[in-house]
Amino acid sequence: MHYNLSLIGFGNVARAFVRLLERKRDLLQSQYGITYAVTGIATGSHGFAVNPNGLDTNKALELVENKQSISVLNNFHLPITDSLSVIQHSSAHVMFENSPVNHHTGQPALNHVRAALEAGQHVITANKGTVVHGYRELTALANAKGKKFLFESTVLGGAPLFSVFRETFPLAELHSFKGILNATTNLILSRMEAGETFDEAVKYCQAIGVAETDPSADVDGWDAAIKVAALVTVLMGIPLKPQEVERKGIREITPRMIEQAKESGKRYKLVCSAERRGDSVTARVAPELVDASSPLYGIMHSSSGVVFRTDVLPDYSIIVTEREGMSGGPVETAYGLFADFVSLLK
Amino acid sequence: MHYNLSLIGFGNVARAFVRLLERKRDLLQSQYGITYAVTGIATGSHGFAVNPNGLDTNKALELVENKQSISVLNNFHLPITDSLSVIQHSSAHVMFENSPVNHHTGQPALNHVRAALEAGQHVITANKGTVVHGYRELTALANAKGKKFLFESTVLGGAPLFSVFRETFPLAELHSFKGILNATTNLILSRMEAGETFDEAVKYCQAIGVAETDPSADVDGWDAAIKVAALVTVLMGIPLKPQEVERKGIREITPRMIEQAKESGKRYKLVCSAERRGDSVTARVAPELVDASSPLYGIMHSSSGVVFRTDVLPDYSIIVTEREGMSGGPVETAYGLFADFVSLLK
Repeated sequence: MHYNLSLIGFGNVARAFVRLLERKRDLLQSQYGITYAVTGIATGSHGFAVNPNGLDTNKALELVENKQSISVLNNFHLPITDSLSVIQHSSAHVMFENSPVNHHTGQPALNHVRAALEAGQHVITANKGTVVHGYRELTALANAKGKKFLFESTVLGGAPLFSVFRETFPLAELHSFKGILNATTNLILSRMEAGETFDEAVKYCQAIGVAETDPSADVDGWDAAIKVAALVTVLMGIPLKPQEVERKGIREITPRMIEQAKESGKRYKLVCSAERRGDSVTARVAPELVDASSPLYGIMHSSSGVVFRTDVLPDYSIIVTEREGMSGGPVETAYGLFADFVSLLK
Repeated sequence: MHYNLSLIGFGNVARAFVRLLERKRDLLQSQYGITYAVTGIATGSHGFAVNPNGLDTNKALELVENKQSISVLNNFHLPITDSLSVIQHSSAHVMFENSPVNHHTGQPALNHVRAALEAGQHVITANKGTVVHGYRELTALANAKGKKFLFESTVLGGAPLFSVFRETFPLAELHSFKGILNATTNLILSRMEAGETFDEAVKYCQAIGVAETDPSADVDGWDAAIKVAALVTVLMGIPLKPQEVERKGIREITPRMIEQAKESGKRYKLVCSAERRGDSVTARVAPELVDASSPLYGIMHSSSGVVFRTDVLPDYSIIVTEREGMSGGPVETAYGLFADFVSLLK
């Protein structure tokens, strides 16, 4: 099975994905009979390239990492000047959408996904905006075209979660979940437990590149709310917008509160939760006191995880724990794209 | 898709499975187009029954639970007098092997599985003995017949684990794992932390039916070693016998040791671990001091879980936490059989 791939968005995650594909190239062929070529790339500020016979990805990586344009690789008879033209002309079987997320509208990613599905391409994305703003529409469109719309990397940084439910929990009813889904706030709270103030902890996160100059998307719970909306929408089958998630961030947590929690054997976590009530759902992001009996208690620093309550099993938790060299960055997020890619064979 | 099912072994797990099938019957048909009939049952001490047109399972449950023989339900023209004849004559598409485990030889379950596969039936089992004593042979035989040999319920009490690796971790290399896989010893250690002696905790476990009169299979680490052998054999592809697992039980853990651990913020857990070294593996079951940074630290009472280290992601843990009404008993183990059954459609 040969796949032509197009990469819309060529940032850290997409570039890590290209390297992972290369590292697993021989196994893809020997274990699954999969071969591939990258036939289209759209970058944010380093140009566009299409070659239906396959682009030199090493060259593309080198150019972008040296801040040069990839348009020199373009080997198409028409000028390629935007993402949509890459989608249209790359002869891709699979489009990977990894352009920057716009949480409010999901654009321009939504348009990219629509265009690729309309053109009969599978779509795989790490872009949460497409799930919370378009899950039903895009899944219906994919089904109508006999294609897949997959998004494992949108929650829990590339670790299996959506696929676990899709493939290994047949006919289970998801009643509720509780999780820690935003690494930045969890790191801030962990550092506050170790004695830093909120401002010091935020500065640390900014210094290592995990928090933005304006940290509000993380500390006010927006990123977490988007992930809650994605989980509810997909796993509970109830469309939910981030704005509909009751949301409280961690700005009001003081060192004194952290200290008091510790004294009572508890800690504050920014808990993401949802509970089904008939055909509706209550969903919430808020700081909660968690004690040692909860699987969330031990999730520290940049680790994350979710506890799922179903009708068929005791509480089932998936927890992703950072360790040296593996902490949920682009390399790990890329594995979710890779797993989605392999699952197209099914 | 219509399946005839035979149930070899009709104890708590198999009976819970029949009830679960019944509870999900309508969804099986509407979501997957699956219909089924139970056409053969072999019990340990309440007889055998075959009816190629379908047995009345409610009647079978009632008979066995009133300690009566099910042979009155037998509607076959030949006398059915043992499990093998049930396998042979039940016209089953799927055989569910849930006879009592013999850890040393895997018998008679191994023979049941072989006979069913030879007869062109899929086999699904909660019997660990068949995996540690026959995984390679039985998988090869199943493949040769174009059938499946599935065993989700053998480790972690019916929660998705083998299927998570099979379906959601493509081309990941499993380097090592660490887990708590025996609920009885974990419950004993939890109760010792709460102040009981080893003997008191064992007596409690016997009183509630989770430990045998002779508790050695649990407290000496045999059950844990079998599960380690199963995980290594299947997930690492390295055949390993329980006897090859370095094994130390919890008999030597004293209240004083538990107290000292607590003072240093740690606890003793019976840790199951394995680490790949090239083409071989070191595997071990032993009490270890675990601190709060480990995902195993919070696993108390009858809960269980495993942390997996791969080449592609941060440490990925699956943890199953008991809660009221859901504690990893037969009802939950039955869900693993059910999930395996549905996965036959793939």
